[in-house]
Amino acid sequence: MAATKPENLSLVVHGPGDLRLENYPIPEPGPNEVLLRMHSVGICGSDVHYWQHGRIGDFIVKKPMVLGHEASGTVVKVGSLVTHLRPGDRVAIEPGAPRETDEFCKIGRYNLSPTIFFCATPPDDGNLCRFYKHNASFCYKLPDNVTFEEGALIEPLSVGIHACRRAGVALGNKVLVCGAGPIGMVSLLVAKAMGAAQVVVTDLSAPRLSKAKEAGADFILQISKESPQEIASKVEGLLGCKPEITIECTGAETAIQAGIYATCPGGTLVLVGLGPEMTNVPLVHAATREVDIKGVFRYCNTWPVAISMLASKSVNVKSLVTHRFPLEKALEAFETSKKGLGLKVMIKCDPKNQDP
Amino acid sequence: MAATKPENLSLVVHGPGDLRLENYPIPEPGPNEVLLRMHSVGICGSDVHYWQHGRIGDFIVKKPMVLGHEASGTVVKVGSLVTHLRPGDRVAIEPGAPRETDEFCKIGRYNLSPTIFFCATPPDDGNLCRFYKHNASFCYKLPDNVTFEEGALIEPLSVGIHACRRAGVALGNKVLVCGAGPIGMVSLLVAKAMGAAQVVVTDLSAPRLSKAKEAGADFILQISKESPQEIASKVEGLLGCKPEITIECTGAETAIQAGIYATCPGGTLVLVGLGPEMTNVPLVHAATREVDIKGVFRYCNTWPVAISMLASKSVNVKSLVTHRFPLEKALEAFETSKKGLGLKVMIKCDPKNQDP
Amino acid sequence: MAATKPENLSLVVHGPGDLRLENYPIPEPGPNEVLLRMHSVGICGSDVHYWQHGRIGDFIVKKPMVLGHEASGTVVKVGSLVTHLRPGDRVAIEPGAPRETDEFCKIGRYNLSPTIFFCATPPDDGNLCRFYKHNASFCYKLPDNVTFEEGALIEPLSVGIHACRRAGVALGNKVLVCGAGPIGMVSLLVAKAMGAAQVVVTDLSAPRLSKAKEAGADFILQISKESPQEIASKVEGLLGCKPEITIECTGAETAIQAGIYATCPGGTLVLVGLGPEMTNVPLVHAATREVDIKGVFRYCNTWPVAISMLASKSVNVKSLVTHRFPLEKALEAFETSKKGLGLKVMIKCDPKNQDP
Amino acid sequence: MAATKPENLSLVVHGPGDLRLENYPIPEPGPNEVLLRMHSVGICGSDVHYWQHGRIGDFIVKKPMVLGHEASGTVVKVGSLVTHLRPGDRVAIEPGAPRETDEFCKIGRYNLSPTIFFCATPPDDGNLCRFYKHNASFCYKLPDNVTFEEGALIEPLSVGIHACRRAGVALGNKVLVCGAGPIGMVSLLVAKAMGAAQVVVTDLSAPRLSKAKEAGADFILQISKESPQEIASKVEGLLGCKPEITIECTGAETAIQAGIYATCPGGTLVLVGLGPEMTNVPLVHAATREVDIKGVFRYCNTWPVAISMLASKSVNVKSLVTHRFPLEKALEAFETSKKGLGLKVMIKCDPKNQDP
Repeated sequence: MAATKPENLSLVVHGPGDLRLENYPIPEPGPNEVLLRMHSVGICGSDVHYWQHGRIGDFIVKKPMVLGHEASGTVVKVGSLVTHLRPGDRVAIEPGAPRETDEFCKIGRYNLSPTIFFCATPPDDGNLCRFYKHNASFCYKLPDNVTFEEGALIEPLSVGIHACRRAGVALGNKVLVCGAGPIGMVSLLVAKAMGAAQVVVTDLSAPRLSKAKEAGADFILQISKESPQEIASKVEGLLGCKPEITIECTGAETAIQAGIYATCPGGTLVLVGLGPEMTNVPLVHAATREVDIKGVFRYCNTWPVAISMLASKSVNVKSLVTHRFPLEKALEAFETSKKGLGLKVMIKCDPKNQDP
Repeated sequence: MAATKPENLSLVVHGPGDLRLENYPIPEPGPNEVLLRMHSVGICGSDVHYWQHGRIGDFIVKKPMVLGHEASGTVVKVGSLVTHLRPGDRVAIEPGAPRETDEFCKIGRYNLSPTIFFCATPPDDGNLCRFYKHNASFCYKLPDNVTFEEGALIEPLSVGIHACRRAGVALGNKVLVCGAGPIGMVSLLVAKAMGAAQVVVTDLSAPRLSKAKEAGADFILQISKESPQEIASKVEGLLGCKPEITIECTGAETAIQAGIYATCPGGTLVLVGLGPEMTNVPLVHAATREVDIKGVFRYCNTWPVAISMLASKSVNVKSLVTHRFPLEKALEAFETSKKGLGLKVMIKCDPKNQDP
Repeated sequence: MAATKPENLSLVVHGPGDLRLENYPIPEPGPNEVLLRMHSVGICGSDVHYWQHGRIGDFIVKKPMVLGHEASGTVVKVGSLVTHLRPGDRVAIEPGAPRETDEFCKIGRYNLSPTIFFCATPPDDGNLCRFYKHNASFCYKLPDNVTFEEGALIEPLSVGIHACRRAGVALGNKVLVCGAGPIGMVSLLVAKAMGAAQVVVTDLSAPRLSKAKEAGADFILQISKESPQEIASKVEGLLGCKPEITIECTGAETAIQAGIYATCPGGTLVLVGLGPEMTNVPLVHAATREVDIKGVFRYCNTWPVAISMLASKSVNVKSLVTHRFPLEKALEAFETSKKGLGLKVMIKCDPKNQDP
Repeated sequence: MAATKPENLSLVVHGPGDLRLENYPIPEPGPNEVLLRMHSVGICGSDVHYWQHGRIGDFIVKKPMVLGHEASGTVVKVGSLVTHLRPGDRVAIEPGAPRETDEFCKIGRYNLSPTIFFCATPPDDGNLCRFYKHNASFCYKLPDNVTFEEGALIEPLSVGIHACRRAGVALGNKVLVCGAGPIGMVSLLVAKAMGAAQVVVTDLSAPRLSKAKEAGADFILQISKESPQEIASKVEGLLGCKPEITIECTGAETAIQAGIYATCPGGTLVLVGLGPEMTNVPLVHAATREVDIKGVFRYCNTWPVAISMLASKSVNVKSLVTHRFPLEKALEAFETSKKGLGLKVMIKCDPKNQDP
């Protein structure tokens, strides 16, 4: 009898180093929510960080929390007020869904809403599980020609879209992307899709840079012991001029400094990687050349755009997935992700459908 | 002997229907100018119009005027104050060069400067000739991997860039382009390069639409007798939604009306094609849906961007050239262009180098 | 018994010419709503239009509808999920409150949401009544130094804010405002508050123009039989140059035409007044000078800004109120408004507090 | 006798601490230049700095240089190509005039042009003299109701305009201005003129803060030993919320840090004051709240706007002038300015007209 009980296997972090697969109840969707059968969920660096450290900055795991926020699934039940989705719809999930219509929401920057719900940011549960309910307005129907995994990859892709938008990437721009991890990769892809003429990608790792080259980087630059000024100089040498835009994805102080030196007057440096609380930077050098310094906090208004791009094959993210594990082997998946092997580890949550 | 030496063969319009190949003196560049040996010059609809009608609107051919403004060539002499160019440099020519630093120039919209020099707009001579002098700041060095013809095509491409910028084409946009002539084609190419997810191109002509399809149009729509509302409805049917942006390149009143009906709330209609002086339009329908209506006057700040895109192979304009004639056969070239055969007729001005 | 029944006197339009004061039940607020005791409600031209014609365009009064949407009141009850308001709070009411978080809401242009609730637009009831419930997120607390009537006037002021924002009014601009009715007046006030150096206001009526002059217009221009070009020429004569921005508040075809002729190259014409369905305009004249034509549909994100401006005394709207009537005399108030006497007729809904 | 006739008395810095009044020849204007009889020239902190230190950063006084760049005068002679000015015209002088039409000029950001001429920045001479020639396009005719001193004050006012534009000051904004010196004062004035609802000004000096209060500051905050976080907290207390915009005019590291802590999510911090080469800042705190950090380098496109504002009395800068000296007493004037007494010291260059 117990075997027939509807089960909801979920990956739960209880504290630093304490990650468990547990059986949770299947939730009931509210009037504006949908219940989803989860299909593909990517592992993000933040998931690994919560597992390893039990916190990220002021966000602390104080009670057990389901991980996972790069996700797609299938609608199995819709709330009473939901009109745009119905059971059977394949959807990508935007993990951040505002809880109230505050002034940030009203002006279209809902990512800044202080009370926003966000999957797998304490105390909000994520969707590394079999069944998950979510605000229906933040579930986006996938066209037939977009796979579940592409749907899940919209989350990291959104970071790239938001960063490139904040940067103001424009036709013909030269762009420097610091870091060839998943976020550097999506920033590269999006910058090219927005019309960047040439993109330089830097990293410490030669294999990562090879991946970036394959993905469309015009130039790659392996960093070892160069000073920030030397990095800037090498980038200028490759492009024949300073880039209008730098997208910093490493968080390293020297990379941030290099980003300031590298960017041309009137350009923009976007900080995606998070560095130390206090950072020592040549601020006057940025200010007197009117190089703007902008950060990003997650993203907003990216899912519809990403789906359009994926449906029209204008951007290709499939090669980002390097490993796949069924949900039952989630701990093994996290170990793989922690080792930094490959780019994106995808967890397959539906035992009956493990297709990409 | 010297009197018979062919010096500077030039294509000169004297009035409606009166087009002549004449021998002009070779000009001497001023301190901020360069003298160019012309290589490739495309024929524009406006060139044909000046030949046929002797005027466009208030611009009237009152004295003989050399035609041509889509051009590239080689620097043969530089003025005393020119530092960024030297003899032998291959350059693309921006035909509009401000005569004074007025308030339009200062804010970066120099195309609106009322006293601007502009090739082949009366009374300013164009560059369909062997030798031509131009403001050096508006001659842009071509990289080795960009051909002279690509350099000449930067002019029509610039119309597309300016139109798409004014439209605010953004990542993932759906775009409607009305008209599949040269300007419709470059608008299509640029919209895709700026990240448009899907572009619909409309035209009366099936062969033109085939060209558009080859050039990357996601959908094509042949117009016959549909009402503006019917056109809008068909466009919505193809895209699955109304486009955020419409770029109107025909000037036809019905197409402008269709553009208003077709564009989604909050979107933008850009008028590139010029229609009748007074136009009857559903302005309230645009206004209450906040569909902005914007025109374009030539372009500004497009050459560097276009060169970057051509150099990085991010946009391909080569297939726009369908015919080539040496300068000596310019009248034949104009007859061909007038017939509307093909897309772009290119005139080769250098008798010793007729390569693309 | 009837005397003790809680009553909610409401002004209800039943069809063209059929306006009645009726007793409605006091509504019960939902979890995200507040119940308000109404205080001041201004009469808008649209209220009068629904009374006179039973419709505006496609919005048709098919069942009895309470009028009124320029309103302020006091919270008397809050829904279970409301945290930012409590009983006793004095609030201004934004009449448009989205029903769902659609893509227009997400990007901050919720006024374009097709399913938005909007007071006194069929079939949604307005707030010309004693008690009214509303989405709490669209009720804004008034500081002690802002009166209820100022709170009610935020609605027309919002039209001016939205128009001036869409116009991009900037420091030092010259602005033409066509029409000196309530909307022309608030456009004038906001344009000056945003830094316009000089504003010209035009109207047919000398008394209205006097009011505009008192309110801060730098120049006034009485229109009689001038052609659109003549009006443009006179405006240029007053300012010494063409205005960068024209805000058209009349809807008259000639005024729209004049707006196009009057606006300087690179400028913007904003259409606030609604004219005929099809409008004959010199579109080429606008397009080739890059004069953008933009409409407005209501407003968004204006209440917090308006409250800040009123609280800091940066804008003065009090003089807009020329007449006051208690709710019991609402029909008399509507007759007054219909006659076009004065600017703004205010209805006082709270029998115990009829202060401004 | 003629040999001793004072021709063009000029204030020349020869090196650190070496400031001399010398007789220079009267220059001859080139074709695009005008010769001006100087009237009023304000002393800027940079003038004092060149006198005291012989350099600012990489700009080093290697040969004698005339000081002065906040200036107005009268046209006495016009170059052959000048059409918009004639002798007798009273003008304000924009000290930065591009030497070539480079890409920064073309996009309207000519202040970033690396080859720009700029008064009193080595090696370019300024205009603290009797007669001075300048690029006519950067001399702006003053209306009769704008005084010469107001004309000279357009220079510091321009810093405020450029800072507030870069900040994106908008209607209803709350603004923090750090520093109540001349630049803090003009930032305050411009922010209010652009529609800021409330401005807080901070400074160490109570008398300066009193001046700011008189000039329109809504709140003033005297800083002593507070930590950056404490300053931010006090600002929030005064405004009732965090400001959307902070304009930092001191260059102090703690003030920059306070600016980051103080600014609300999604806001902008503009750096006007120049601090140490390397600055230690809570960059992550800015980045994750999307607080943009932007610098300013001088200004562009401000003179016409400033003249419009002064002519329409929309901004009042007259009270900034606290001291006046004739050119003959320039050294005394510089001593006064160095002591930091008052706000703006004005030097009167025309012995026959020392009016404001």
